[in-house]
Amino acid sequence: MNWKHEISAAAERIDGYAQVTPVMESRALRLDYPVEMKLEHMQHTGSFKARGAFNTLLSLDVPEAGVVAASGGNHGAAAAYAAQTLGHPAKIFVPELAGPSKIALIEQTGADLSVVAGEYANALTQAQVYENATGAMQIHAYDAPATVAGQGTCFAEWEAQSLKADTVLVAVGGGGLIAGALGWFQGARKVVAVEPETSCALNAALQAGEPVDVAVSGIAANALGARRIGSICFDLAQGMTSVLVPDAAIAQAQDKLWRAHRILVEPAGAAALAALLSGAYQPEPGEKVAVLICGGNISPDPLQG
Amino acid sequence: MNWKHEISAAAERIDGYAQVTPVMESRALRLDYPVEMKLEHMQHTGSFKARGAFNTLLSLDVPEAGVVAASGGNHGAAAAYAAQTLGHPAKIFVPELAGPSKIALIEQTGADLSVVAGEYANALTQAQVYENATGAMQIHAYDAPATVAGQGTCFAEWEAQSLKADTVLVAVGGGGLIAGALGWFQGARKVVAVEPETSCALNAALQAGEPVDVAVSGIAANALGARRIGSICFDLAQGMTSVLVPDAAIAQAQDKLWRAHRILVEPAGAAALAALLSGAYQPEPGEKVAVLICGGNISPDPLQG
Repeated sequence: MNWKHEISAAAERIDGYAQVTPVMESRALRLDYPVEMKLEHMQHTGSFKARGAFNTLLSLDVPEAGVVAASGGNHGAAAAYAAQTLGHPAKIFVPELAGPSKIALIEQTGADLSVVAGEYANALTQAQVYENATGAMQIHAYDAPATVAGQGTCFAEWEAQSLKADTVLVAVGGGGLIAGALGWFQGARKVVAVEPETSCALNAALQAGEPVDVAVSGIAANALGARRIGSICFDLAQGMTSVLVPDAAIAQAQDKLWRAHRILVEPAGAAALAALLSGAYQPEPGEKVAVLICGGNISPDPLQG
Repeated sequence: MNWKHEISAAAERIDGYAQVTPVMESRALRLDYPVEMKLEHMQHTGSFKARGAFNTLLSLDVPEAGVVAASGGNHGAAAAYAAQTLGHPAKIFVPELAGPSKIALIEQTGADLSVVAGEYANALTQAQVYENATGAMQIHAYDAPATVAGQGTCFAEWEAQSLKADTVLVAVGGGGLIAGALGWFQGARKVVAVEPETSCALNAALQAGEPVDVAVSGIAANALGARRIGSICFDLAQGMTSVLVPDAAIAQAQDKLWRAHRILVEPAGAAALAALLSGAYQPEPGEKVAVLICGGNISPDPLQG
């Protein structure tokens, strides 16, 4: 797969559908160095997931039965939003742990929503059953080429916005976003994978030498709690730097983003920054770093929507 | 006063002290046209006020007694933060209606804080008494040249970030920010003043032909509730477009910013956008518009800080 080419094509395809999200360089995080940030939580439906969803629907033939997605919440909201925008019916399965904010967000799109007991993997099973029964097209949350290429547009866009960093830190769940980063940068910038200690499918896979099942829990589980890393991500991730952060560090990073910049995000959205604030990743002297702020669907909703 | 020159000098002075805030162009606001936004609520202490505070302290000799400020909350937090950063003692007077979020924010800077009964004007009186008694330097919230020049740097910065708009909408309280906009743009772009119907000192002054006292109330009163427009602003504002928005439209604009972009702001921060969403200001066909998002210190604090 020529990822650079796929991502460039995706960027052209989703132009006008995805929001160009703002970037900034913060000096207010009480670190010894500035941190570039891309505020991708300002994307439609509150996370980068809208990119992959639009790219999938715009690059493949969508059957009359529409689309189906399984999601911890963010991907489902994005798939439902993209389907609504483009006029396709959408069926979304989410686990209970998606929480009320994300469930309300999906309901607002008019999608047909089913809340499934247990964790994300159970929602995925139900989506596969639905796909087989109806002929609806599944938009995979992370392990499909069109999804990865769509997420990669985030990094192409960031370079066009004059990204300076040597190193880009990205939070990892199933690996669609970081696969997009690795596919776009192709080693030209270092990519660091950040996972919660409580949901670390990529780290476990890199240690085991192959994707393995992990237990998932913790404050970012509905966004980062994939049981097994995607195979596209695993192939691209060989030899990369992978760090883990405790849940408490994620909560502290959430608080710091709000105090320093009135950026209010869900735990997953603060996880990459947590690696810097906690010292889980320590840049070399002079190493310029950037953090992708990936999701903002915090619960409870501060405006009770 | 050569405002263009004063603002350029202020920008150089506060470089490295104020945060360069991000900009974006939104197509997600359900309007027929895109809207450029500058996310100035991501400034230190959550509003543009840090610019004027730093410019004041860096351009004038600060006495040993330090600085004093009266504030509905945002200016006090900014003055306290700038004083702390530069090593000066700070005394801040706020009215009760500043609310717990802003009061906590000021306390966190280590400033000496007094909460005063009644509205903003009472806090200003107390600050003047303190200034006379101690020799501390007052940082006026809006009606001083160094304050206005500092706030104007926000618009100089925006132009350097490739602002395209023909028209820039700015919320008005005492008029320091919009005076900075008028002083910087000098007619090259149209500036529209937006005030709540419940706190409209500029609109009343333009109608009366001179600054007059107005009653202040409503959801944005702690940020926009100046009893009388500043004289610097009034002089610059002759002939400008001034619109009013009801409190309900401000609340809807707050909600829209959160739903569309996970931008969580206080009422004052959403007031300028409310003029577009409510139709209080209707652009001509093809007129490109921009909105300054000026303050993010919402109450209650969503992370209970």
